[in-house]
Amino acid sequence: MKTLLESAAAAKAASAAVAQLTTEQKNAALLAMAGALEAQCAGVLAANRADMERERAKGMSEDMLDRLMLNEKRVADMALGLRQVAELPDPVGEVLADWTRPNGLRIKKVRVPMGVIGIIYEARPNVTVDAASLAFKAGSAILLRGSASAYESNAALVEVMRGALEGCGITPDAVCLVEERGHDVVDKLLTLREYVDLIVPRGSARLINNAVEKATVPILQTGTGNCHVYIDGSADYAMAEAITINAKTQRTSVCNCAETLIMQADWAEKHGEALLKALADKNVELHGDEAAAKYAEMIPATESDWADEYLRLAMAVKIVPGVEAAVEHINRYGTKHTECIVAESAEAAGYFLNNVDAAVVDWNASTRFTDGFEFGFGAELGISTQKLHARGPMGLEEITSYKYLVIGSGQVRP
Amino acid sequence: MKTLLESAAAAKAASAAVAQLTTEQKNAALLAMAGALEAQCAGVLAANRADMERERAKGMSEDMLDRLMLNEKRVADMALGLRQVAELPDPVGEVLADWTRPNGLRIKKVRVPMGVIGIIYEARPNVTVDAASLAFKAGSAILLRGSASAYESNAALVEVMRGALEGCGITPDAVCLVEERGHDVVDKLLTLREYVDLIVPRGSARLINNAVEKATVPILQTGTGNCHVYIDGSADYAMAEAITINAKTQRTSVCNCAETLIMQADWAEKHGEALLKALADKNVELHGDEAAAKYAEMIPATESDWADEYLRLAMAVKIVPGVEAAVEHINRYGTKHTECIVAESAEAAGYFLNNVDAAVVDWNASTRFTDGFEFGFGAELGISTQKLHARGPMGLEEITSYKYLVIGSGQVRP
Repeated sequence: MKTLLESAAAAKAASAAVAQLTTEQKNAALLAMAGALEAQCAGVLAANRADMERERAKGMSEDMLDRLMLNEKRVADMALGLRQVAELPDPVGEVLADWTRPNGLRIKKVRVPMGVIGIIYEARPNVTVDAASLAFKAGSAILLRGSASAYESNAALVEVMRGALEGCGITPDAVCLVEERGHDVVDKLLTLREYVDLIVPRGSARLINNAVEKATVPILQTGTGNCHVYIDGSADYAMAEAITINAKTQRTSVCNCAETLIMQADWAEKHGEALLKALADKNVELHGDEAAAKYAEMIPATESDWADEYLRLAMAVKIVPGVEAAVEHINRYGTKHTECIVAESAEAAGYFLNNVDAAVVDWNASTRFTDGFEFGFGAELGISTQKLHARGPMGLEEITSYKYLVIGSGQVRP
Repeated sequence: MKTLLESAAAAKAASAAVAQLTTEQKNAALLAMAGALEAQCAGVLAANRADMERERAKGMSEDMLDRLMLNEKRVADMALGLRQVAELPDPVGEVLADWTRPNGLRIKKVRVPMGVIGIIYEARPNVTVDAASLAFKAGSAILLRGSASAYESNAALVEVMRGALEGCGITPDAVCLVEERGHDVVDKLLTLREYVDLIVPRGSARLINNAVEKATVPILQTGTGNCHVYIDGSADYAMAEAITINAKTQRTSVCNCAETLIMQADWAEKHGEALLKALADKNVELHGDEAAAKYAEMIPATESDWADEYLRLAMAVKIVPGVEAAVEHINRYGTKHTECIVAESAEAAGYFLNNVDAAVVDWNASTRFTDGFEFGFGAELGISTQKLHARGPMGLEEITSYKYLVIGSGQVRP
């Protein structure tokens, strides 16, 4: 078993080699990983069953068990993701800009790999493959630190990928699992500036806040998603119901599901009862303000109902006079992830799109589309909720850096 | 006098208004600031004299006094910078990408302001105007925390800019000086996540490391520049001398000046003596390894000579067998700022450009060109030495964010 420092040093050493691989070498390795994953699916599922049984016995909730669970379909989706990443254009070496200064200096801005990317994440084991494939295609080595609850699943997935790399003559340390266990490993990883160029914390608010507090390595905050659906006065009822039900119930344990429903008062007067009944029929527990409680039975909402993620079949409900008040509420309580307006009025939608401060703002579309696959990125390393570097789904380009090449003929500065 | 929290809240409140300004409104205000700066130059210089006299009495070095000093030329340069920023294209609202998914969702990626940008910086008061003008043009409010040694100069410059903003009917809180004094103000600022979207620490290694250690607000590390000039075996002597002398001596107190000279062994055998004499003639104190000491009198170099910035007329000198060893040394000791190769050989230059890990890599050009003005950005908020978000000189685009607008017709996720 490697210590954290040994794993980090191995990833750092591998990063120089990964940066030099050609597009063809990287794509062949990604396809080899996909094939290996399918061929060794039974072994991966066996490892996952060990995780599932241990965690079920320890009392993990059904929602969380759903995140942890692998089956043939989910492993096949991982292999599909690997093949999609192989098909994506290689971001490394892209010339982003190229200009010549009056003094004759030619300046080229070219995309380069990040180096070593660390990722700290929770239950879902598909993150292991998504993250490794994206980092690898983007020319970086990756250091994976999943949760203890998914350790066997993650270790099995990493072993399959490392085997495929070796089969292609590439150093397996391009994909490194943090094998060291223990309470303080995450905090140590967050300060390994000598070895790690970027850390992506991905999981609960607690995990992310811990990273924000303690990291000295640059981080990309990902997603707690306290996402809102605002139903404007101009909204079509059928569309409003379809989007609200989809955003809340299609999958409840993910960051891009909706947590709060905001209805314009006149619209609520006409349709509030029907919409809230549709939610209740889907077993959604309602928490609302006084005005909302006119249309359905609900638990009175407290401050935490507006501020926190439920990540289960529960929804806060608020009534507002119009789009301005909706935007004000969202900018106060939202987590800058994904916010949705349902409206026929282009004016209301325009105000919402311009003034809501979030990574993704939807007009007449479910919040559930905030996702690297759905955006066409092939996979994603997470959904960024910070404003620096990358916002929203992070695909290949979002995990690269760039450098300037300045080409002269002896110029000096006067 | 405002407390830090009052200043931060004022900047936050102003940021929403600044984000809504049209390009014309922003440009008119920038030109008004430039005019006001020229009209009120005498007052600014008087405030600067107070800073200069106090700091000279306290024993500030001549190099540092040069960084603090303002004169009519430097104030005129600030006004010029403001006018250049007014002429630059407005980055806000730019559509960075626009595509439609197979399910009909249209996704638009648009550039948006950062919000509130904080900057923590040292002596040079021109940073006050450069930073404020760039943040303002980029649609953000700015919170300025200069050093105590430049407080009067900075306060005078901010007052001039705030007056010009008010004259244009714009909230003066778009440009806020941190007025609260005291030891812990910087540390408090570094954790104001509720108010500040980005902090740029700009100054000494100590200032920057403190920010890296303590910030919970996302930061852009700027530049300690331990920059190298590598003279390849294929280099032309006259060019090598001109670039080395310029990179080391044209201005010594800035981050983009060179600190270490690396010569290829055969080239040094032919030209080392002449080049080192040229440096000595410019009063450059030499620190070198044994091989370099053959060509001139010098102090034996220690580990810190390779690792630290002199920021004065001193230079470390190293002899290497070739470009690979030069790159190895640079990637070990460099600070990822600016690195230069002087070479006629395209092969050696190509290896250097590809393998050196730095924000800017120069081929046959002085390191002193790493600068927002010299790159054509109009001004700069600093030179980033991290790989996340922005690398090298940070102009307008580098201090913006983006968001995705997703426009549908009722799509839900299957």
